[in-house]
Amino acid sequence: MDAQEVIRRCGLLARCTEEPGHITRTFLSAPMREVHRLVREWMEEADLRVWVDAVGNIRGVSDAGPRLMIGSHLDTVPHAGRYDGVLGVIMGIALAGQRIAPLEAVGFSEEEGVRFGKPFIGSRALVGAPPMDAEILDAICEYGLDPGQIPLAAIDGNVRGFLEFHIEQGPVLEDMDLRLGVVQSIAGQSRVAVSFLGKANHAGTTPMKYRRDALAAAAEWIGFVERTARETEGLVATVGQLEIQSGAVNVIPGAVRATLDLRHAEDCVRNAALGTLECAAKKVARDRNVRVAWEPRHQQPATAMDASMIRALCTAAEGAGHPVHLMVSGAGHDAMILARKVPAAMLFLRSPGGISHHPHEAVLASDVDAALAVGTRFLETWRPS
Amino acid sequence: MDAQEVIRRCGLLARCTEEPGHITRTFLSAPMREVHRLVREWMEEADLRVWVDAVGNIRGVSDAGPRLMIGSHLDTVPHAGRYDGVLGVIMGIALAGQRIAPLEAVGFSEEEGVRFGKPFIGSRALVGAPPMDAEILDAICEYGLDPGQIPLAAIDGNVRGFLEFHIEQGPVLEDMDLRLGVVQSIAGQSRVAVSFLGKANHAGTTPMKYRRDALAAAAEWIGFVERTARETEGLVATVGQLEIQSGAVNVIPGAVRATLDLRHAEDCVRNAALGTLECAAKKVARDRNVRVAWEPRHQQPATAMDASMIRALCTAAEGAGHPVHLMVSGAGHDAMILARKVPAAMLFLRSPGGISHHPHEAVLASDVDAALAVGTRFLETWRPS
Repeated sequence: MDAQEVIRRCGLLARCTEEPGHITRTFLSAPMREVHRLVREWMEEADLRVWVDAVGNIRGVSDAGPRLMIGSHLDTVPHAGRYDGVLGVIMGIALAGQRIAPLEAVGFSEEEGVRFGKPFIGSRALVGAPPMDAEILDAICEYGLDPGQIPLAAIDGNVRGFLEFHIEQGPVLEDMDLRLGVVQSIAGQSRVAVSFLGKANHAGTTPMKYRRDALAAAAEWIGFVERTARETEGLVATVGQLEIQSGAVNVIPGAVRATLDLRHAEDCVRNAALGTLECAAKKVARDRNVRVAWEPRHQQPATAMDASMIRALCTAAEGAGHPVHLMVSGAGHDAMILARKVPAAMLFLRSPGGISHHPHEAVLASDVDAALAVGTRFLETWRPS
Repeated sequence: MDAQEVIRRCGLLARCTEEPGHITRTFLSAPMREVHRLVREWMEEADLRVWVDAVGNIRGVSDAGPRLMIGSHLDTVPHAGRYDGVLGVIMGIALAGQRIAPLEAVGFSEEEGVRFGKPFIGSRALVGAPPMDAEILDAICEYGLDPGQIPLAAIDGNVRGFLEFHIEQGPVLEDMDLRLGVVQSIAGQSRVAVSFLGKANHAGTTPMKYRRDALAAAAEWIGFVERTARETEGLVATVGQLEIQSGAVNVIPGAVRATLDLRHAEDCVRNAALGTLECAAKKVARDRNVRVAWEPRHQQPATAMDASMIRALCTAAEGAGHPVHLMVSGAGHDAMILARKVPAAMLFLRSPGGISHHPHEAVLASDVDAALAVGTRFLETWRPS
């Protein structure tokens, strides 16, 4: 299967959507049946034995013995592009069809967390840790699957590794003029709700020196967040939400609520930055006679990819004549979940314009060809230790 | 009438409300009838001839010839305190009752702009410029007044000046440990809608150097706004609203919309600051490769109070043994409207805690006594030029 065919199949799956005119396909939604029909057909053409496990992952096995698993997810965000997740599933089928090594191709039912606010439902079932909320079990029953069979979705010792092809979803490879990147680790992540509590007051009658302006405090801290991230190699820090309580054009903001999203490949760097940013928030608050509430919301350690798989991917890329960038993934992926149980690795394909989660999401056919070539060489050489 | 009685009457008017448990009384709302009944009673006790003009101002005249007008407004913001406006109306009646000089006491029907988004309906009718929106005329008819009579509300040449007693609504007098302030001028005001337009992107996969973060741009500019105001004597600048378009914890803000409220006693200082802040917004935007939209929304020039009335108030205060602070009013008041036609002045009473537009709004009885003493001496000496 060549790049044109990979891209054509991504286009066919894009037609399976909950919203005509957009690509929106959540966990076990109606269009997932047509996705399963097409993927089953393609897996069978590749001579794989196909089954859909109890959380709705579609799996095609070439050989029940020791094997490498290759795949990604089949669900999408609302108004998605064609390639996030889907590309990695089709790449798995394409490589399985080459019959170079025993493989299991997989299309995970859920990664984005859109339908129930719980991401990775698909891959978590493979490592024995699916979320078991009643609404998720109901959706499984409604789709015609049997929640009692979920434990059978878990991988056994014969799955010796997991490889995920995925679009980068960022601008780095394009900026470096490279087709491919090998992921060294998936960044750890901290999320914090940060509130500044000052005093609302009249914008006309309150001279500057009497003010306890919560927005001015937040703005000073946001500047510090940005400088800290710029000065710390590899750190990304984002204040993505900010709300003024009862804001009005002629009222000094009394209370502001913001969010912080902080990511880095090394947990110690992220934790150090987290402490620095908390101290900065407290200092800004103290200097301005406002209060600050710092509420950690979510913490996810960094996940290293498997060293032997990274080496083999780099060697394969070199052999195929495609220099790669060794990089950190700032986003979470199914490989992060599989890494709990088996060696895992990821190959990123350049994202034109750095665009993802958007209809303009794209991939170049020549980059897909490069990734196929690297995958082929990888399968020819890599053996699990 | 002594301070205790002035405060008691403010408390009686506070019972006239659209919302039980709160003080909320908008233009020509039902509780305004009971307000008019009480104020009429008090004006008649003070031997004034009372009429309600066609926009609902209640007016009590001691002498139809040359006279000073004293008063303020009877409407309130939602969930108001007892003294904003009302205190100045009762002060006018108290001073008229002393029969020192020919006076007209007035209680304006509308200053806050709550019901129809148009402030100063009451005082604007006196200078021949009431807003004539259909909904306002309807409300006038519904209250039983005749819009055809609005021109008769305008003052003629016999009104030789306007004096307004008002709580400060800010912290300055309390901080200076002074009971009273004489207003030199009412600050001019500029309002601007300021938008920063960058690019929304993934908070994990977009390294800092590739970002075009609209919130980080806004935060940098807000810091500049605050510094500029702190460094410019008498300038107040407020960013009171800020919204991120489609903000999410894990998305770099692509578009931010904020408001600027800028006030100063001198128009040239305010205009210079306005230019500086616009340049700063453009520089921040240029440096960050984002766009900025700067949309002026409202402009109100500063209004000087009458020099001879200011001098007479200062002399009266000195004679009464109450040192005053000569100050700028950051908020607009009816005196600003009356100043279009007649000499106008304001005496501020200290606001405990700087609190206003809030149920905790207060005034000290001893400050009211001081204001009455100053008012009495002022009436004994001031004559229009």
